[in-house]
Amino acid sequence: MAVYTSVPSEMLAGFLARYDVGALVSAKGIAEGVENSNYLVETTGGRFILTLYEKRVTPEDLPYFLGLTAHLSAAGLPVPAPIADRQGRALQRLSGRPACLIEFLPGISVTRPEPGLAHAAGAALAQLHEAAADFPHDRANALSLPGWQSLAEALGGGAAEIDAGLPVLIAEELAALSDLWPRSLPQGTIHADLFPDNVLALDDSVSGIIDFYFACTDFLAYDLAVAHTAWCFDAEGAYLGTDVSDALIAGYQGVRPLSPAESRAFPLLCRGASLRFLLTRAYDWLNTPAGALVTRKDPMAFARRLLHYRAS
Amino acid sequence: MAVYTSVPSEMLAGFLARYDVGALVSAKGIAEGVENSNYLVETTGGRFILTLYEKRVTPEDLPYFLGLTAHLSAAGLPVPAPIADRQGRALQRLSGRPACLIEFLPGISVTRPEPGLAHAAGAALAQLHEAAADFPHDRANALSLPGWQSLAEALGGGAAEIDAGLPVLIAEELAALSDLWPRSLPQGTIHADLFPDNVLALDDSVSGIIDFYFACTDFLAYDLAVAHTAWCFDAEGAYLGTDVSDALIAGYQGVRPLSPAESRAFPLLCRGASLRFLLTRAYDWLNTPAGALVTRKDPMAFARRLLHYRAS
Repeated sequence: MAVYTSVPSEMLAGFLARYDVGALVSAKGIAEGVENSNYLVETTGGRFILTLYEKRVTPEDLPYFLGLTAHLSAAGLPVPAPIADRQGRALQRLSGRPACLIEFLPGISVTRPEPGLAHAAGAALAQLHEAAADFPHDRANALSLPGWQSLAEALGGGAAEIDAGLPVLIAEELAALSDLWPRSLPQGTIHADLFPDNVLALDDSVSGIIDFYFACTDFLAYDLAVAHTAWCFDAEGAYLGTDVSDALIAGYQGVRPLSPAESRAFPLLCRGASLRFLLTRAYDWLNTPAGALVTRKDPMAFARRLLHYRAS
Repeated sequence: MAVYTSVPSEMLAGFLARYDVGALVSAKGIAEGVENSNYLVETTGGRFILTLYEKRVTPEDLPYFLGLTAHLSAAGLPVPAPIADRQGRALQRLSGRPACLIEFLPGISVTRPEPGLAHAAGAALAQLHEAAADFPHDRANALSLPGWQSLAEALGGGAAEIDAGLPVLIAEELAALSDLWPRSLPQGTIHADLFPDNVLALDDSVSGIIDFYFACTDFLAYDLAVAHTAWCFDAEGAYLGTDVSDALIAGYQGVRPLSPAESRAFPLLCRGASLRFLLTRAYDWLNTPAGALVTRKDPMAFARRLLHYRAS
């Protein structure tokens, strides 16, 4: 939650001169996203987000991410389009970093979504899946089963420092998911991180889907499972009840009905999604120095989700 | 350079309902200002800065600061006006902090100002002094001679850790300024922190003067001296030459000519201004933990300025 790379305004004005976006009027570093540096830039031609990619994003993946958002935006989804310069280039370098000027979308991220917005978010996710069907590129999901196994090994004894019961929970769940994880559900391009922070809303409508930097190729229903773990629990991991859950799934199915196999697999996919965030949060928890710029998020909130899905 | 206090969007929407500013459209925490938390807020009625005052600002001083900016804005200066709610209150509480919704001003802060902008900034500072002449409130400058003496004592042996020559430089300068500091120059309300970061510019014109949280009552020419130490040196404290210096002073004198006494005292006032920032930076340097959210600024950049003014 910080701007890591500083861009002096003179450098920014020179950078913007590559584009047909008018002259610089205002620029504010925004404290959003733990992965990148972001500026909210206003020119005489409009408003934009300028993103500088920091070390957690692999530069080789950027053409995929930017190609995907351009594709989805062109298909009419509320996804921020990368802006091309006069030479047609969207991916640039600025202040020593890969950088991209991106469309600004209005809307706010709600902390505690109501069912109406959950319904709209479910529908938007299904529209995203449909619009991405003819996106011609693939990216393996580094955070699926093999990735979870690697992360669990990397945690080592650290998991027990977080919670005495965590090593057993992780080991049991990895064993169960290795046995049961589906092999043949419909695949496609997924967002893979559709938390409420990554949805911009105006009242109950979705005005923006943002932060595609985990997008990859995987089961479509797994994307809905990620959204379910993200939307249907509070920050501590307590289940919010069926209203938001029903609305999210109904919104999705109104656009793209789940197949019987997807519906059957859904609780298991939710366990996998919970484990995915449990593991990455546990890893970050153990590897983020106290007092760092990034706020550590409690891994146990996802252990609680996992236990919820196991019990249901 | 961070948002310290988080405001969930639902809380923000409720807060904005106190005002006649329309509905919330967008809100971004901005990474600006080391003293406060700031959000750039867009509503259906316009754009605003929402400031939450963190612990470095004394709450008792806020009515003075907000009264001053309201006064200057009403006088036609490009100063961000505090916005009053339907009950006429500008100073509020939000998320446990004193808070204020403030007018948004366009413009960018330049890192290396050109003479044209320095001239405009000098003129704007003089206009500020004239417009504040009928502002009826006073606030003592806590960072004048007695404050410098206290800061020097608080540094103790720490100054030598920064630079072996620093304790002698500070002691000599405090002794000299105690003897020579003027007693009877024209006084008034001063900004007291007019660095280029606190000036928003569109080309060579000043579109905003911001960050009045050091404003106080002191010698008007001391304010120009602060601006001189801020504008006429690079980040390491090397003098940029006479172009910017001449432009800044000419811009000021085009609106409010310095008296002969002020002109004579000016080099000494610049030494005082250099010492003021040298001492606060040295104090912050020694008292900011490594890895803190705030970037420490090198105190020696102001020791170099001090030596420049002594030699000239």
